[in-house]
Amino acid sequence: MKGEIIAIGNELVSGRVQDKNTFFLAQRLSRYGLEISSIRIIQDNEQAIVECLKNACNRSTFVIVTGGLGPTEDDLTVRAASKAFGLPLKRDPVSWKILKDYTESHNIPLYDNVKKMANLPEGARKLDPKTPRAGFSLEFNGCFFYFLPGVPEEVRELFDRVVLEELLNKCGSRPRVLTRIIKVFGLRESEIENRILDILPNFDTVSVSYLPCFPEHHLHVTAKGKEEKEAEKEFLEFVSLVSERLGDFVYGYDEDSLESVVGDLLRSENFTLSIAESCTGGLIGHRITNVPGSSDYFKLGVVVYSNEVKESVLGVDRELLVRFGAVSEQVARAMCEGVKKLGETHYSVATTGIAGPTGGTPDKPVGTVYIAISGPDTTFVRKYLFSGSRTEIKTMTSQVALDTLRRTLLKMAEK
Amino acid sequence: MKGEIIAIGNELVSGRVQDKNTFFLAQRLSRYGLEISSIRIIQDNEQAIVECLKNACNRSTFVIVTGGLGPTEDDLTVRAASKAFGLPLKRDPVSWKILKDYTESHNIPLYDNVKKMANLPEGARKLDPKTPRAGFSLEFNGCFFYFLPGVPEEVRELFDRVVLEELLNKCGSRPRVLTRIIKVFGLRESEIENRILDILPNFDTVSVSYLPCFPEHHLHVTAKGKEEKEAEKEFLEFVSLVSERLGDFVYGYDEDSLESVVGDLLRSENFTLSIAESCTGGLIGHRITNVPGSSDYFKLGVVVYSNEVKESVLGVDRELLVRFGAVSEQVARAMCEGVKKLGETHYSVATTGIAGPTGGTPDKPVGTVYIAISGPDTTFVRKYLFSGSRTEIKTMTSQVALDTLRRTLLKMAEK
Repeated sequence: MKGEIIAIGNELVSGRVQDKNTFFLAQRLSRYGLEISSIRIIQDNEQAIVECLKNACNRSTFVIVTGGLGPTEDDLTVRAASKAFGLPLKRDPVSWKILKDYTESHNIPLYDNVKKMANLPEGARKLDPKTPRAGFSLEFNGCFFYFLPGVPEEVRELFDRVVLEELLNKCGSRPRVLTRIIKVFGLRESEIENRILDILPNFDTVSVSYLPCFPEHHLHVTAKGKEEKEAEKEFLEFVSLVSERLGDFVYGYDEDSLESVVGDLLRSENFTLSIAESCTGGLIGHRITNVPGSSDYFKLGVVVYSNEVKESVLGVDRELLVRFGAVSEQVARAMCEGVKKLGETHYSVATTGIAGPTGGTPDKPVGTVYIAISGPDTTFVRKYLFSGSRTEIKTMTSQVALDTLRRTLLKMAEK
Repeated sequence: MKGEIIAIGNELVSGRVQDKNTFFLAQRLSRYGLEISSIRIIQDNEQAIVECLKNACNRSTFVIVTGGLGPTEDDLTVRAASKAFGLPLKRDPVSWKILKDYTESHNIPLYDNVKKMANLPEGARKLDPKTPRAGFSLEFNGCFFYFLPGVPEEVRELFDRVVLEELLNKCGSRPRVLTRIIKVFGLRESEIENRILDILPNFDTVSVSYLPCFPEHHLHVTAKGKEEKEAEKEFLEFVSLVSERLGDFVYGYDEDSLESVVGDLLRSENFTLSIAESCTGGLIGHRITNVPGSSDYFKLGVVVYSNEVKESVLGVDRELLVRFGAVSEQVARAMCEGVKKLGETHYSVATTGIAGPTGGTPDKPVGTVYIAISGPDTTFVRKYLFSGSRTEIKTMTSQVALDTLRRTLLKMAEK
């Protein structure tokens, strides 16, 4: 029982955009034991789509197709599916009702190209019968086809909410696959491998793959085959052994993010946080507030992008700015203590540095960054020299700041 | 004259590793006017590789294959090529000499699996005749095949050093390709198409594709073929006509971002900017400071995530907070004017809203957002109801805030 994935779009074939859907789908399907035999990326060309669908149908048990469901001229997938399977296009009553309600309530004119969104090949079924989100399924010659939009966020949402469960039911129960993502920051890939290399041969049902997600490394651990209980025992043992070897470089697992882990640590002790950012420009605040419920502990962020506001808003002594410069240990410390006072919080973080590409000097080259952490008792500052583009330096600074805060909170919790 | 790309590897099809080669190759080939009609990613399975090569040969003028050239059992590409084209495997003298010299000088035993690396299908030619790097080319039925390794760094190096030039020579000089990305915010895809649908038939060398990049839409305009001067004239005419039809919904082109356009408008008038963020949590500051040189105009950002700091830092009247709530027109206005005063800037932006998933009420459901803009003379506030996840609501709010600021600055410049 094998499947295949087809992604449709000129922008993907021409290298203007890197396709994200096929990788996501391959990962998800594999995790649930559904094997993919091939992935195809093709142009917005009706004849090519028709042929591809016909071939897939002869070869595979299930086929996931992405792209080409929109309203415009270059969206050809629905018509191609109709031709490939000889199923005439009909106005789907479910899609039509949703479309009419939606366009009316949003005052969108019902242009012809919008109307066409309600047409489906005969016998096809809209995947989401409650929202206007495009996507449908149909069965032909014993092969299950799922047609999804091209926008990665929509593909993820629809696949996880609707397609996966249906597919698993149709394809019968599959051997359970156990997976865990171990999230690591602060070790190189080669270092990670060297720390765990000798463990691997003892676990023959477990496999590991390394996925660099700048600036982190994610270890994907998978176990399958064998008797279920046995497999699970080995799997858990393996994950705990690897975690032990990597120590506190592991910040979390699976859905954890560095900012959600920091948030949990703050919340568990009823601590509050404020942030003063210079070179990160708001990125740390943005990351912290991506976590739902972060208003429980996050109170105040200040982005001080000039010397004047460092002084007027955070109370940084002009003397320090003049004598040591805005990018200095002394100013980082003053910013950090200033924002903690202003926000009346238990903890605070401050960053000041040179994100580039201009602004570097021989003394303080691009990438020079000071990160300060202030807690109930003390403040400390560390100096770094990061490399890369402006956005890479911003990202790395926010990452190290959050990780340093995490380590500080862990130490506090141990006491 | 069309080509295709084939990537071979179980790890790619199973989603353990994201394929990087096909995207790189598609980008490079397109840049030089060589069109790719399809990309295939397949398993390490001899029969599948054989079939894929045979099909490619009937369809395409050139084919780039990556992966499966190594010494191990799962490296099947050379044998598959031999079978697909009926070309017996022969020891290639060039490869054999390099291999022998290399293994001798590096003290590597000449195991059978290493020896096999010197075998090529009859008539094939090693791509790099000076190093042991794997890779060969062959011609079959008028189709040019290039077999490259799977390691991305090796693919890049070999492609740029050897393959590209050869391919361009073989395929003859290609017409120059003109491209422009028109960046649009505030119009639906169907609306964009309707505004320009009637222009398209008049330009037969130009093609357009639509790319949704949430929350924006990007139109990729491409022109090629015809005589060069002629093509360029048509292309420029088309871009200007489309821009005219879409009016100020077009915020920029190619490398422009909404934040860089806003930055240019501020800089050109020597205006300065401050930002007060509640529901966007620092995202607007982050976007503004992603632009190199943004310290020229951006002075202060404040993320006020509690009522206390709205009052103490921005001077929002407690009366307003109690009477209208933090998510209200009155508080948005007070935040905006407060931060402008604190940062001593010409312009300011403020956001306050409910990003969800919790915190909504019947009166103010999740997605309720107020955006305020304050300039030298006046302040105005607009109310929105956005939908989607927490990060989608944050993104949309930051986008509308920046776009409203852009439109305000454009109006000022007209005066």
